[in-house]
Amino acid sequence: MSISVETFFLNPQFQGTLQSQIQQMIAEGILSGRFRKAERLPSTRKLASHLGISRITVTLAYTELLANDYLTSRGRSGYYVSENAPVPPNYKPVQRQEDKVDWSRVIGRRFSDGNTPEKPQDWASYRFPFVYGQADPKLFDHANWRLCALQALGQKDFASLATDYYDQDDPRLVEFIARNTLPRRGIVARPEEILITMGAQNALWLSAQVLLTQRRMAAIEDPCYHALFDILNQSRCHLAPITVDRDGLPPDSIPPETDVIFTTPSHQCPTTATMPMARRQALLERARELDAVIVEDDYEFEMSFLDAPSPALKSLDADGRVIYVGSFSKSIFPGLRLGYLVGSESFIREARALRASVLRHPPGHIQRTAAYFLSLGHYDALIRRIREAFRERREVMQEALDKHGLKIAGQGMHGGSSFWMEAPDHIDTEKLAEKLRPQGVLIEPGHTFFNGSGRPRNYYRLAYSSIPANRITEGVSRIAQAIRD
Amino acid sequence: MSISVETFFLNPQFQGTLQSQIQQMIAEGILSGRFRKAERLPSTRKLASHLGISRITVTLAYTELLANDYLTSRGRSGYYVSENAPVPPNYKPVQRQEDKVDWSRVIGRRFSDGNTPEKPQDWASYRFPFVYGQADPKLFDHANWRLCALQALGQKDFASLATDYYDQDDPRLVEFIARNTLPRRGIVARPEEILITMGAQNALWLSAQVLLTQRRMAAIEDPCYHALFDILNQSRCHLAPITVDRDGLPPDSIPPETDVIFTTPSHQCPTTATMPMARRQALLERARELDAVIVEDDYEFEMSFLDAPSPALKSLDADGRVIYVGSFSKSIFPGLRLGYLVGSESFIREARALRASVLRHPPGHIQRTAAYFLSLGHYDALIRRIREAFRERREVMQEALDKHGLKIAGQGMHGGSSFWMEAPDHIDTEKLAEKLRPQGVLIEPGHTFFNGSGRPRNYYRLAYSSIPANRITEGVSRIAQAIRD
Repeated sequence: MSISVETFFLNPQFQGTLQSQIQQMIAEGILSGRFRKAERLPSTRKLASHLGISRITVTLAYTELLANDYLTSRGRSGYYVSENAPVPPNYKPVQRQEDKVDWSRVIGRRFSDGNTPEKPQDWASYRFPFVYGQADPKLFDHANWRLCALQALGQKDFASLATDYYDQDDPRLVEFIARNTLPRRGIVARPEEILITMGAQNALWLSAQVLLTQRRMAAIEDPCYHALFDILNQSRCHLAPITVDRDGLPPDSIPPETDVIFTTPSHQCPTTATMPMARRQALLERARELDAVIVEDDYEFEMSFLDAPSPALKSLDADGRVIYVGSFSKSIFPGLRLGYLVGSESFIREARALRASVLRHPPGHIQRTAAYFLSLGHYDALIRRIREAFRERREVMQEALDKHGLKIAGQGMHGGSSFWMEAPDHIDTEKLAEKLRPQGVLIEPGHTFFNGSGRPRNYYRLAYSSIPANRITEGVSRIAQAIRD
Repeated sequence: MSISVETFFLNPQFQGTLQSQIQQMIAEGILSGRFRKAERLPSTRKLASHLGISRITVTLAYTELLANDYLTSRGRSGYYVSENAPVPPNYKPVQRQEDKVDWSRVIGRRFSDGNTPEKPQDWASYRFPFVYGQADPKLFDHANWRLCALQALGQKDFASLATDYYDQDDPRLVEFIARNTLPRRGIVARPEEILITMGAQNALWLSAQVLLTQRRMAAIEDPCYHALFDILNQSRCHLAPITVDRDGLPPDSIPPETDVIFTTPSHQCPTTATMPMARRQALLERARELDAVIVEDDYEFEMSFLDAPSPALKSLDADGRVIYVGSFSKSIFPGLRLGYLVGSESFIREARALRASVLRHPPGHIQRTAAYFLSLGHYDALIRRIREAFRERREVMQEALDKHGLKIAGQGMHGGSSFWMEAPDHIDTEKLAEKLRPQGVLIEPGHTFFNGSGRPRNYYRLAYSSIPANRITEGVSRIAQAIRD
């Protein structure tokens, strides 16, 4: 039997080379059982002419499939589906029916009712995306990241790519963080005091699991990062939301029963306030009084382009009571999922054991690639480039906001990547966001950052991390217009 | 000021190119504050001759550092540390003291007292590593993995690399699993019924969190995968360990109060027993009677080289009560950390929300690379190669075990990657393992696979997944000798 050339057609949507498309077409035909063992494929000449592509492309695809033992060749008589090619199973799946399981009963714990808003996956297709936390392809150093990844894919690094590290991390990444990243934040730590995590999100989650129980109390900033709120709610601890002011978290308001304090001193999320030095000292003093520990999310310290970053709280901590959360996902790119926890060895040991149980370890290849990117200086160059772009965008934005009289509720003294905005009282920013979408404008409604009932609904966040400077003025003007209407 | 050429020396241990070593040396000198702004670097000629390397290598490193703005060049007068180079902080870290925190009190939950044994990181340096679950560099298709990773690092795939997917997965990987991987196990699933996880470990962990509470009961196989035991202990549910026989989990022994049944029908872990078809039907029937759900870890189904794999339990499940766990980490390489969960949409929704809270999503780059590797047919070729090697190793091992009269307690009818062994009653296999280590032999003591008190201490696992066939006979002979002594 021969496989008819007519069954082949090119998909114009296909992402990848022509060769890989042909290869994939044939592999899928075999896997799905459409092409059977010993069936003969169209000759390379025939298939090439049918598809209107070069014959060498078809030959290369066939050769690759020969190497993978999907095909065999029989001298001049052509290519055949190999006797060793994978076979589809000979059993049919059972007929799909209604589930006989009552999932509302079977599900023991629910996680889908959190605070974290759904975000548009297609944000990049909007003209005025004032969205937070996505990488700007124009700023990212794709070429060098690619080179570092290539190096990490090399034979020398095979072990770091493939090995099951159990509960360990890539020693090179840990060493770089200990010797270079942390000293620049004024922090000294040994490798046993550092744990690589799947981004800051994962670091916060691990900290909450180790430190909190139903009988403990966590003090959090209000407003705060909504995903942290979800994490703490899931841990079922008592929560003390503390209203932040223009200097961030006020230490005096932390209730005496507090066990753990979560704070973002570099840039408060979402108000972007920077905590002054005196208050950092006061916060440490307050934690000492209460014998509480502090989880410091050193949020966006890299984005300090208006002033040098303040020393991390952790660098002032003589008691060992600060647990430090750092992230590469924000500054390199969020899809990376790479961050770290720094804390006393007893704490890190528990966080490490929990991480091993949940996911073993962050993929080795990613850790090694980041280690190269950092140690070759690309990371610093990237941060510098981002800072310069953000400084410009921020200036343009500040001017546009002033011009339209839009009220800024919070802005970082040291920089950051967004403004925290307050609309007039009667505006519901969730509705405002809906109204702006068809006009190509994405903004982030602010109510999900607040805790408890009676959350104000007239705040919103405008990030300038993903929008080019030359679109900011027009975007802001559309927001101002929508608020006026 | 000039930086003396004497401060530079090559590190023979350095992993990477000469150019990257020079680049890194200079970047680190600047980051640590040893090299200061406007200081002049040795000329390329001088540094090259001092290190005994080619001048072009030094020039390339300098050029890279110019591009990263660590250095500037002033015409013919040479290279200088740039005015824009990163500066070390001007604050000193506080002096390290004893922690003032009582961590034994502060830590709310402990995770470090689990069952999972520490494994030697340096297993590859042993001559007879009968260790389970590490990639064999001789079998792995490094070249094609590298090509797929390169493609996934391309400009076209920038979004899949960099984007914060929130709670979503790479649509291409999900599509491939739905259209190709699952149908070969007899399973039909829509994308909403599939969740990408950080390996099977993460899939089991997520399932346990969603399905179990302190008031529920889980039935598990005894012996079983030790990390599953840790996961379930942490969830504080009631546990019913059920002794497996040569056909795996006996359905009649599952107690009536059971809510969730964890099982490994393809190859029971660690005995490698394959559950026969009739028992699979009986197990589904028993679950129906109890209105329990089943979590099926389709462990090592790819390694069925002695007989075609049986249909997955999930493929026989008309009620929707089976949750299916698949893994690419075992078959591609464990450092990958990639697996998937398949189940009813209501269940997957909760698992997805929890995953988002814990870590957002598995890194995009890894998902896309795996999608390419799978869809180009490299995965099947890899599995075929592994199967052939394992078949040979298993034959050699069977022969050696028989020759020395070592007792096999369990072996897969369909293949697998290990033998489950029983030593004479008086042998403690943990001590046996210690004794064998200095002889270059690594074995896995079996007691950590058993539950509760009175665990037998005379079982052990011998894997042939990482040891070449030509070392097996000698390795087994050393084990036999150590048992006799």
